Amino acid sequence: MNPTDFTERLVVRLPHTDAAGVVFYPKVFEIEQELFERWLELGGFSLRDMLDRKLAPTPIVRCEADYRLPVRAGDKLVAQLAGVEIGRSGYTLAWTFSLGAEAAISVRVKRVAIDPRAGESVDLPEAFRQWLLETQSRTGGLS
Amino acid sequence: MNPTDFTERLVVRLPHTDAAGVVFYPKVFEIEQELFERWLELGGFSLRDMLDRKLAPTPIVRCEADYRLPVRAGDKLVAQLAGVEIGRSGYTLAWTFSLGAEAAISVRVKRVAIDPRAGESVDLPEAFRQWLLETQSRTGGLS
Amino acid sequence: MNPTDFTERLVVRLPHTDAAGVVFYPKVFEIEQELFERWLELGGFSLRDMLDRKLAPTPIVRCEADYRLPVRAGDKLVAQLAGVEIGRSGYTLAWTFSLGAEAAISVRVKRVAIDPRAGESVDLPEAFRQWLLETQSRTGGLS
Amino acid sequence: MNPTDFTERLVVRLPHTDAAGVVFYPKVFEIEQELFERWLELGGFSLRDMLDRKLAPTPIVRCEADYRLPVRAGDKLVAQLAGVEIGRSGYTLAWTFSLGAEAAISVRVKRVAIDPRAGESVDLPEAFRQWLLETQSRTGGLS
Repeated sequence: MNPTDFTERLVVRLPHTDAAGVVFYPKVFEIEQELFERWLELGGFSLRDMLDRKLAPTPIVRCEADYRLPVRAGDKLVAQLAGVEIGRSGYTLAWTFSLGAEAAISVRVKRVAIDPRAGESVDLPEAFRQWLLETQSRTGGLS
Repeated sequence: MNPTDFTERLVVRLPHTDAAGVVFYPKVFEIEQELFERWLELGGFSLRDMLDRKLAPTPIVRCEADYRLPVRAGDKLVAQLAGVEIGRSGYTLAWTFSLGAEAAISVRVKRVAIDPRAGESVDLPEAFRQWLLETQSRTGGLS
Repeated sequence: MNPTDFTERLVVRLPHTDAAGVVFYPKVFEIEQELFERWLELGGFSLRDMLDRKLAPTPIVRCEADYRLPVRAGDKLVAQLAGVEIGRSGYTLAWTFSLGAEAAISVRVKRVAIDPRAGESVDLPEAFRQWLLETQSRTGGLS
Repeated sequence: MNPTDFTERLVVRLPHTDAAGVVFYPKVFEIEQELFERWLELGGFSLRDMLDRKLAPTPIVRCEADYRLPVRAGDKLVAQLAGVEIGRSGYTLAWTFSLGAEAAISVRVKRVAIDPRAGESVDLPEAFRQWLLETQSRTGGLS
């Protein structure tokens, strides 16, 4: 992932598609999860630390996607982190997937920091909030 | 699928889960697609006919999901078609996935009928609109 | 799953397919995993118990599949447990997926019981071995 | 993909895993499909051309995998094309996935060139055979 503008080049592969010849709609969230992990790593964090509970895990509480153009196997997409919203325990990342100059798919995913033993939301860890703020300073917020 | 109340019993299987021990969030949309196909078949339609263009295909233009409870491998869910919204060319199905008495996950998916050659939206085929209306008369609309 | 002959009727759904219009080849193993879990449950066992370590987990050590016929969305398959091989700690289940009278896909998956703490193979638990033997008495062994 | 030794560095991501905490076994074939497409592109070919029938498509007729080590989210793997077998219409690619110095997973996938209209196997296109031979000259054959 480009650390300056949070872009990533992707090629749509056969496993992303279905018999209608286009991206099978849930696959954009599988891609989002990988982009999320790469963004974590840019900030010095890792999913592994969340799984090992060295860092508060942040399960998904909400996701949404809009599909504006059909995307096919072999298409070259540019994914970009387009905006961040930061709450007390939750945060939302918005991604756009562009095909040439056009926005093909946009995705928003909200995650919330939890204490996995208590099963309750907790404040975002301070270092993680700093990374969110630094990211937001470059991407802007969400409208 | 129960033809009266559009419910379906599901068991969460290992392929639905991830290393956090819960349902991997995009998997609910894979389940939704199968439920959608079963609902189509209850009305006398089929995805096969859409793929073969005997019936206008209705690709997804928008989806969203809310995750309220962690759901684990072996959990027994009841899925139910909870509401329908009907437009000129588009329609939205809302599904709830309950774990015992509690709503664990809710999903909304909007599809739009298209002419695949022109790549433009078309009016919902009349017989299909009738099936949407009949479904809506039992599930209610969307708030 | 039919408890007498270990058959299960399946409809191929869009999530199983790819842009070539046929079943995406790894998807047969996702289906196998669900069939495996249903077979476990017929014998009074569960994947949940394996995940909770009330029963020795049996991770996959080998799998293979042969694809003889193209299988498309909407196709109706009959899956059947076609044979079982039983070792000291490992066991192999062979499945066939038929389209009408023809074998379309066949799959073999070998799992091995382990002690997850030591990371070493262990003898198959006795009750589980009995279920394998009972299954084998109905399906036959593997050639 | 490194064009000299056909290696590719991979990080195991959450979508590859299941509730047992390790790679869900069919996911290695999804990864294989992406590696296959990258290898095609190194040779000047593309899956898009196969889907558009500018190049004979080569559906999978057989696959197998051996799992030697548990692989977890965050693990860094090196994938390598380890050998090629070339027939009249079919060819097999063997891949190894190493974790540090150890082979964690090995995969073999056989594809066969077909005429999609006739549904019959055809000779491998000559330019494609040359690319297989050039690849084999660097990787060796299969034992």
